[in-house]
Amino acid sequence: MTLLEQFRQKDQELVYLRHALTLMHWDLETTAPDGAKEKLSDAMTFFSTESFKKSTSDEYYNLVCALAAPEEFERLDDVMKFHIRKLKRDLEKMRRVPADFYEEYVRTLNASTIAWPKAKQNNDWDSYKEPLKNTIEAVKKMQKYTDPDKEIYDSLIDQYEEGMTCETIDRVFEELKKELVPLVEKVTSKPQPDHSLFTMYIPTHKQDELCRFLVEYMGMDMNRFAQAQTEHPFTTNMNLDDVRITNHYHENNIIAPIFSAIHEGGHALFEQNIDHKYEFTEGANVNYMGLHESQSRFFENVLGRNINFWKPIWPRVLEIIPEFKDITPQQFHREICRVENSMIRTDADELTYCLHVILRYEIERDIFIGGASVDDLPDMWNRKMKELLHITPESYSEGILQDMHWSDGSFGYFPSYLLGSIYDGMFLEAMEKSLGPVDDILAAGDIKKITAWLKENIHQYGSTRTSNQVLEAVCGKELSAKPLISYFTKRYSTLYNLH
Amino acid sequence: MTLLEQFRQKDQELVYLRHALTLMHWDLETTAPDGAKEKLSDAMTFFSTESFKKSTSDEYYNLVCALAAPEEFERLDDVMKFHIRKLKRDLEKMRRVPADFYEEYVRTLNASTIAWPKAKQNNDWDSYKEPLKNTIEAVKKMQKYTDPDKEIYDSLIDQYEEGMTCETIDRVFEELKKELVPLVEKVTSKPQPDHSLFTMYIPTHKQDELCRFLVEYMGMDMNRFAQAQTEHPFTTNMNLDDVRITNHYHENNIIAPIFSAIHEGGHALFEQNIDHKYEFTEGANVNYMGLHESQSRFFENVLGRNINFWKPIWPRVLEIIPEFKDITPQQFHREICRVENSMIRTDADELTYCLHVILRYEIERDIFIGGASVDDLPDMWNRKMKELLHITPESYSEGILQDMHWSDGSFGYFPSYLLGSIYDGMFLEAMEKSLGPVDDILAAGDIKKITAWLKENIHQYGSTRTSNQVLEAVCGKELSAKPLISYFTKRYSTLYNLH
Repeated sequence: MTLLEQFRQKDQELVYLRHALTLMHWDLETTAPDGAKEKLSDAMTFFSTESFKKSTSDEYYNLVCALAAPEEFERLDDVMKFHIRKLKRDLEKMRRVPADFYEEYVRTLNASTIAWPKAKQNNDWDSYKEPLKNTIEAVKKMQKYTDPDKEIYDSLIDQYEEGMTCETIDRVFEELKKELVPLVEKVTSKPQPDHSLFTMYIPTHKQDELCRFLVEYMGMDMNRFAQAQTEHPFTTNMNLDDVRITNHYHENNIIAPIFSAIHEGGHALFEQNIDHKYEFTEGANVNYMGLHESQSRFFENVLGRNINFWKPIWPRVLEIIPEFKDITPQQFHREICRVENSMIRTDADELTYCLHVILRYEIERDIFIGGASVDDLPDMWNRKMKELLHITPESYSEGILQDMHWSDGSFGYFPSYLLGSIYDGMFLEAMEKSLGPVDDILAAGDIKKITAWLKENIHQYGSTRTSNQVLEAVCGKELSAKPLISYFTKRYSTLYNLH
Repeated sequence: MTLLEQFRQKDQELVYLRHALTLMHWDLETTAPDGAKEKLSDAMTFFSTESFKKSTSDEYYNLVCALAAPEEFERLDDVMKFHIRKLKRDLEKMRRVPADFYEEYVRTLNASTIAWPKAKQNNDWDSYKEPLKNTIEAVKKMQKYTDPDKEIYDSLIDQYEEGMTCETIDRVFEELKKELVPLVEKVTSKPQPDHSLFTMYIPTHKQDELCRFLVEYMGMDMNRFAQAQTEHPFTTNMNLDDVRITNHYHENNIIAPIFSAIHEGGHALFEQNIDHKYEFTEGANVNYMGLHESQSRFFENVLGRNINFWKPIWPRVLEIIPEFKDITPQQFHREICRVENSMIRTDADELTYCLHVILRYEIERDIFIGGASVDDLPDMWNRKMKELLHITPESYSEGILQDMHWSDGSFGYFPSYLLGSIYDGMFLEAMEKSLGPVDDILAAGDIKKITAWLKENIHQYGSTRTSNQVLEAVCGKELSAKPLISYFTKRYSTLYNLH
């Protein structure tokens, strides 16, 4: 066996272990009965440990290093070059972490992951403070091992959006904030539509049928797609030919599942559309969360909240949901573009969502750069809510305790959501330059042309291009919030008669 | 580590591999999109090979043998004694099979498994003859390795129903045939009920809801149970706390899914009710297919086709299926007890089903004992259909090609179905002796008393008792078809006014 063949064999074992693990996670969330979850977790721990052992073994690392040596490396094709380069860098980081610290790290994060839901449920900030402090310290220590030469918060951001820095985010978030806060003030001073039109009972199997129709309409290859129900919607894949989304249906609120389907559908299209030549390599994993979110949010917001998305399919929507028979596309559009200052990020509209993210980003920055103390976080949270959204949480649960991200150490993740939207503004500009107005394409029922453009320019490359490289290739310019601001202003000025 | 601890560690790895494999099979049938099936099969092959390698390794076998040595063995508890004894016997059989023959065997069986659905679809017996001949030869050769001292057909039967012999089956099947053929003749000479009452459209999500209700009513612990849709209904489990059934819904035929749910529910109750002390040992696998079928068929036929099963729950049935509002329990009962001579085993009623099995058993016996040639099988099939059911298939597809069992080498399996029913006659007799008339218990809505009796007397033991041992313990007498005949005669004489 050649060196490459030996490596491929080892690598394929890891692929199968990950398949089992991903499927078990899917099963845990979608199907496994409650009484089975403990044993399922045990099995997942086994496969996760096996996978960790094999991927950090000397045997595997030595094969990677041997293939990374100049002479061997030159003989590899581009797909394998990307794979080996990425593996080598990741393994080096991982192998710098002492085993005993890794154990301590996992234990610390587990403790705050367990403390968080209880604290949220009981509105009990005090019980969560200590675990959160420990998690922050553990995360800092971990980054010193994995990325000793980088500023701590830059290295956290880099985990989720390679090449992105705090400096760039500061610039674009400030740019956005300056324009968005007054825009939201203007919009929320206007009357909002009558929500009671949309609280009728709609059986969940019909909602499921509508959601399937929507993702197929968006361009999903239904032959490589599956859909199920879970508590919280998510996207996952076993491989490029098996991409899955979940949804959560509410019998008296069909709007939320519709937009979950379009959002997760956007993630799923990205994953389905990656070139098959990257299958089973690092190129096929979408590692840049800002870029990933840009695709889900492009479908959810830029397209899904455009009235022209709905006009050509309204007859089909009424066939599936006859309960909508007295609702016009215009009324529906008003409803899905309502804007309100509210407490919970995941329930927020397209505009105020951005401010929820900015708040979290600024707090993270204060923790890791400003040296803010965990004790001060609730006050800081409430002050910023007042400043950005003019409201004050009445409890920790609807304030600082609402998100799980910090409990599992995912500091640096939040900015990805908003970076995704900022990219979307730029992608929209570039797309319209190349295809003409999105309004017209959607009105003609040609959404698949848009999906094809995204595949051609973004999806097919998987993670072989960082977000910065994609922006450079697709938009030819530096990151800026201006296109997003101009898209927001156009849509909401018209809808709310701001002129 | 003690010897036992070492063994448990190895054994637990096999448990996890089997969990992954069972879940992948579940996923293949329930959720995985078509485009993903090839890669899923590859992953299944990997885990199946790993599992085979580990379970047949010298390391594992030596641990089993060391624990089976008298001094060590005596120190084990009863659960582990059963486990080690069974493993040792199975491993010895398996290890007598030369590796190169095993490969040939798998290849031969694969070829007929692939040939069968095509042949069935195209009504093409000729293309299937050769693969079937090869499979029969491979099965014979395999049995010579695994069970060199047994009569070939006995050893095939023993695979699925340990301790059962051809001689016993001959005796009880003849006993049954003699009475059943004239009974069916009498019943089918009477008018059958009007089927058109039951062809209304009923949405599949409501059928699903009804089926969940039924298995819960039967006593399923819904906290350790899951249900999904597949092409063909089946029961599976990841472990004792995760038992799952599938169903196939027909929008214009609700009767079939109802009885699939009750049938698979019977299998599932057996698996759920095994004592937890056997978890992760051979005692927790139900290896006796006749005994397993006896439980599914007891619920499906003895209980499910009894009008008193339906009377107490009819109001709830009408709530879920308002389309039944003009149907009485009596009309429903007539429909589910219709008797017709028909071509397809899986669609057959409770009475003629037995004759379908006898036909297959007699043909298998002729192949392995009588030396019948594959070339003669279609004629033999049609002759027996005429003799037992007075009808003749118009094609191979609705005749000899209808079942998949022979294509994958499962000779000896068919008798299990009917043995199950014969056991049921005996279990019914014993149960009524102990609990009083089943009619009364069902009419009072007390079906869970019946399930508890089955758990107490049969289920809890898993496969630590063979079917013969269960019959001895529960009924205290030798296998006989008489109780089944008497139950059939009573039910159908009343329904069809045969007196």
